[in-house]
Amino acid sequence: MNSAAAPMPKPSVAEPAITTADRAARLGHAGLVVWLTGLSGSGKTSLATELERRLFQAGRWVYRLDGDVLRQGLCADLGFGLTARRENVRRAGEVASLLADAGLIVLAAFISPFDEDRQLVRSRLAPGKFLEVFLNAPLEVCEHRDVKGLYRRARAGLLPEFTGISSPYEPPPHPEVELRTGELTLAATADLLEAHINQRLAELAANSR
Amino acid sequence: MNSAAAPMPKPSVAEPAITTADRAARLGHAGLVVWLTGLSGSGKTSLATELERRLFQAGRWVYRLDGDVLRQGLCADLGFGLTARRENVRRAGEVASLLADAGLIVLAAFISPFDEDRQLVRSRLAPGKFLEVFLNAPLEVCEHRDVKGLYRRARAGLLPEFTGISSPYEPPPHPEVELRTGELTLAATADLLEAHINQRLAELAANSR
Repeated sequence: MNSAAAPMPKPSVAEPAITTADRAARLGHAGLVVWLTGLSGSGKTSLATELERRLFQAGRWVYRLDGDVLRQGLCADLGFGLTARRENVRRAGEVASLLADAGLIVLAAFISPFDEDRQLVRSRLAPGKFLEVFLNAPLEVCEHRDVKGLYRRARAGLLPEFTGISSPYEPPPHPEVELRTGELTLAATADLLEAHINQRLAELAANSR
Repeated sequence: MNSAAAPMPKPSVAEPAITTADRAARLGHAGLVVWLTGLSGSGKTSLATELERRLFQAGRWVYRLDGDVLRQGLCADLGFGLTARRENVRRAGEVASLLADAGLIVLAAFISPFDEDRQLVRSRLAPGKFLEVFLNAPLEVCEHRDVKGLYRRARAGLLPEFTGISSPYEPPPHPEVELRTGELTLAATADLLEAHINQRLAELAANSR
């Protein structure tokens, strides 16, 4: 073989890739993972959906990452035992991190009951790019709503290791935001969270200057 | 418990989420997965990096998804045996699909040696949103380059099931694009691929009207 057969330069010769900062400059804001944790029925999906709508209409680049959706694709191979549920959260965190690197504000809605798993997600992101939001609603409220009928099935023993019933939920010791979704309206919690997100984006913009 | 304790509406009451079409309208183009397949050393990363730069500078929303990067995060739990490598491709496809759903042109660079695995990725995307690009360089050229020193190690028996040496590479029977990266310069292959991507984006825009 002679060198004329391989004229393509090696990767090191390629121009530098587009950076996270390049993307933020284009978009007008940094990427960010807004991690909504709380019991099933605490209002994570409702709040994420409402925030997605508000932020998009405000010109932000936003994407909602939902546990139910991931279960049909990336995590379709995982069951619901303890190990599988923790792996589910790990993968969700990695995907959220990639989406944030691409420049998006990611609204990630996952029960994510264990503090260690949530801190692992935080550790995978640059400082300030993880906003932990605790949807703090009493179990009684969540179970009373029972939107998906899961609590009824868990009480009947049909769902082993169900968070809040037969598996623990560890409240975040130091969440950036805590929302009492059992007492406040959706609009009120959305107002609070939107303000926190905007504040964080402003801080990230100030730090990047 | 009384109803006043749970004023938050059920998810079904929430406003509709932002759709894929909403994002495309905002961005000015659809999301798309550009899947670069080929032997190690066929130039996937170089080409993806060059295209990322060109498309970004042309005002497109683009993100490069690289096998080596995923191996450090989402796929850090996977080994290099046959099953693990296929799972690696499956996860890469799912992540690429999510990024495209968020509106990005995803440049996914993965050896992905098996046609069945690539077709699985294609099947997860809406029609037209998967562009299979075969970097067709002879094994001799790739092995001669040996940018990462992998072929040398594979020949020494240190890397079992290495594509092209001890594990097969199945060329795509019907790729949308085939690039002879062993003969063409990087600039020439990038010109070709950029034209194909722009054509596909125009088709997707026309079909969405």
